[in-house]
Order: sequence, then C-alpha cells, then structure tokens
Amino acid sequence: MTVLPGKFITFEGGEGLGKTTNLPFVQDYLQRRNIQVISTREPGGTPLAEKIRQLLLNTEGETLSEHTELLLMFAARSQHITHVINPALAKGCWVLCDRFTDATYAYQGGGRGINTETIAWLEHWVQAGLRPDLTLLFDAPIEIGMTRAAQRGGKVDRFEAEKLSFFEQVRQAYLTRAQQDPKRIKIINAQQSLVDVQQALSTKIDELLST
Amino acid sequence: MTVLPGKFITFEGGEGLGKTTNLPFVQDYLQRRNIQVISTREPGGTPLAEKIRQLLLNTEGETLSEHTELLLMFAARSQHITHVINPALAKGCWVLCDRFTDATYAYQGGGRGINTETIAWLEHWVQAGLRPDLTLLFDAPIEIGMTRAAQRGGKVDRFEAEKLSFFEQVRQAYLTRAQQDPKRIKIINAQQSLVDVQQALSTKIDELLST
Repeated sequence: MTVLPGKFITFEGGEGLGKTTNLPFVQDYLQRRNIQVISTREPGGTPLAEKIRQLLLNTEGETLSEHTELLLMFAARSQHITHVINPALAKGCWVLCDRFTDATYAYQGGGRGINTETIAWLEHWVQAGLRPDLTLLFDAPIEIGMTRAAQRGGKVDRFEAEKLSFFEQVRQAYLTRAQQDPKRIKIINAQQSLVDVQQALSTKIDELLST
Repeated sequence: MTVLPGKFITFEGGEGLGKTTNLPFVQDYLQRRNIQVISTREPGGTPLAEKIRQLLLNTEGETLSEHTELLLMFAARSQHITHVINPALAKGCWVLCDRFTDATYAYQGGGRGINTETIAWLEHWVQAGLRPDLTLLFDAPIEIGMTRAAQRGGKVDRFEAEKLSFFEQVRQAYLTRAQQDPKRIKIINAQQSLVDVQQALSTKIDELLST
C-alpha cells in the first residue's frame, strides 16, 4: 500500500502465538535475499515512544481512560512513523513491525469497545497514506496463546492482566479485519508446528517478493 | 456550559502575563464566599498526566511531531477530566484550571498550524459536553510577557524556546477565540497594575456568581 520504495510488513495477533519469535525468521529470510531490513515494534520504536509504551503498560495504579489509551497509542505511532518507519521505507529498506494499527482496531476497538470510525479517523490523520504491504496475523484459539504466555512467566502488564472475554473480543476483531482485507492480511495458523508456521511465512513473503 | 453542579473556570494566555500568579487570588476570592474550590493545571493534574507533561516539555532531543504533541495534550486531558475535573464538578466543587483546551487551539492550532477542525474533533471526542463556564484570558503585547518570563529565569522548556512569530500566532489565535465566544472568554488586560487586574477578575467572578 505504501508508495515508498521499501515494503512494510506487520506482525499481529495475541500474546504467546509466535509473532515475536518468528519476526527474526522473516528478517533472516529477507536478508539472505540481499534485502535491507529493520525490525521494530509498537507501541515503541523511538526513545520517546518507548516512554509512552511504559505509561501504557504500567500506569502505577492510575486507571487509564479508554480515550487516553487510544491517544497514547497514536502519539507513540506518530513518533515511530516520523523517525523510523517512513525514513527507512524512503531509503528502500523493508520494515518489519511487531504490532501496528490492526492491533489498535483489535485491542482498543474490539477489546475496549471504541468504535471503528474513531480509530479510522485517527489512523487517517496520523498515518496519511501509510498502510502495511503485508500483515501476518498469528491466530489460534485464545486458550493456546494464554497458556503459552503464562508459561513464559515474568511480570504481567495491564493488557496481559485482562479477562478471557477481552482476548476473545480481540481475536474476533482481528479475524474480522482479515476478512475485510484478505489481500493484505494473511492468517497464519499458530497451532501448527514451528516448521509449518515458517513454511507458511516463507510462502507469504515469496508472494510479496514476486509482486 | 457544564451541566454538573460545580463551575469550571480556566486561566489562559501566554507566559509571564500573571495567569498562574492570579489563580490563587481567585481561589481565595471564592473561598471567602464559602465556595469549595480546587486548583489544577494542564497539561497535568494527575500523576500520569504530569508524566505526559514531562514528555511534552522536555523531549531530550527527539523532535516531537505535531501529531504527537496534540495527541499527548488530549491524552493528558482525558486523564485529568476523568480523575479530577469531572468528579470535583459533580460534587459541586468549583475547578480553577491553569490552561485548558483554548491553549490547544492557541498553541497547537495557531502556533503549530494544526487545523481547527482536527482540534474540535478531539475536543468533542475527549470532553463530550465539558466546556469551561468562564475563561479568563490574560492578554498583552507578546514582548511584555516574554520580558517578564525571561526575568523569572530558570530552564527554558520546548514551548518557551519558540520564536517571536510563534507567540504572535498564539496570541492572535487566543484573541480570535475570545471574539468568537465573548460570553465565555473574558479578556483581562495584563498591562494593568496588579490591583486593577484583580479588580477586573473580581468583576468577572461576581458576574458568574450572579448567574
């Protein structure tokens, strides 16, 4: 979708489904084909956006209004686009991003119930024409992701502490987006073995390379 | 404008014009009339909103996009409204606030050039029906405020470091708003003596008390 020379690939889906693990696989796959690639993540990606990420993940007891949460997401995103994503794409570099605006539709839209028009308005204002060329949506029944994420241990952030129904709404919102935009959003079955997941990823990347 | 039992008074205008100095005068004036009052400020007013304020005033070298600046302003505002302003007004308490959304129209609109419709959209989404009952706009030619602010000394923040033309645009945007909404926004001539400024403030507060 972007008119810049580089390609923009986003990795989406719930926690524990292999999104973050498989990003280096795709990076390596592209680098072997002599493509310049950077990997980044949202919310975050610049020093200031990472500070905003900290405000989002741990509010130290102050309840975050749903408005604040959405505005902070797009504030971080604007920094990330201006200072990292657009300059890289302009140089012909490919950008791999762990979560982007589909996550906002899924978590703040599906999960928190903010209406899609509001998110679309902010997306349009903050991103102008920037949309991913390819989105890899890691999907599985939510119990699977939650079990895997729990096994990782560590401190649970504000999002990870949400209820089962929240994650179910997030998953459904992701799947709805995939249905609405099947050319861009490719569902990766995260219940498969790692070998099969990476085979599926390779196929999707090859399709993008051949366009 | 608010339908809540308390009254909401905002203090607006450039740096060095007596806005922050005169807020305690109004607070005292109301308390002598047995009105419960709280004083607060923007951006800020809650622990999380104060952290956002720090991101806005000192970005440690990372250029803030104009989108990020506006979104952070409204993110802080949403926390402030939810946790401080609305609960106080609902209890019948009056709220005095050092800067509010008119400052956004003046600084991000007039100063940065973000269009008014964008700010109005966010104002409507974040604030719903909340608007000040009275806005006291401290005004003087910008040289006066800048000289006074410089005399205070201390570290200069991102906004204070702006050029003369920026502050001229901010002032004009404030005056345009006052012209458009003269019932709410009262211009206080900040070139007067302190006694005369406080006489003018008393008159405006008395008018609000008698409504």
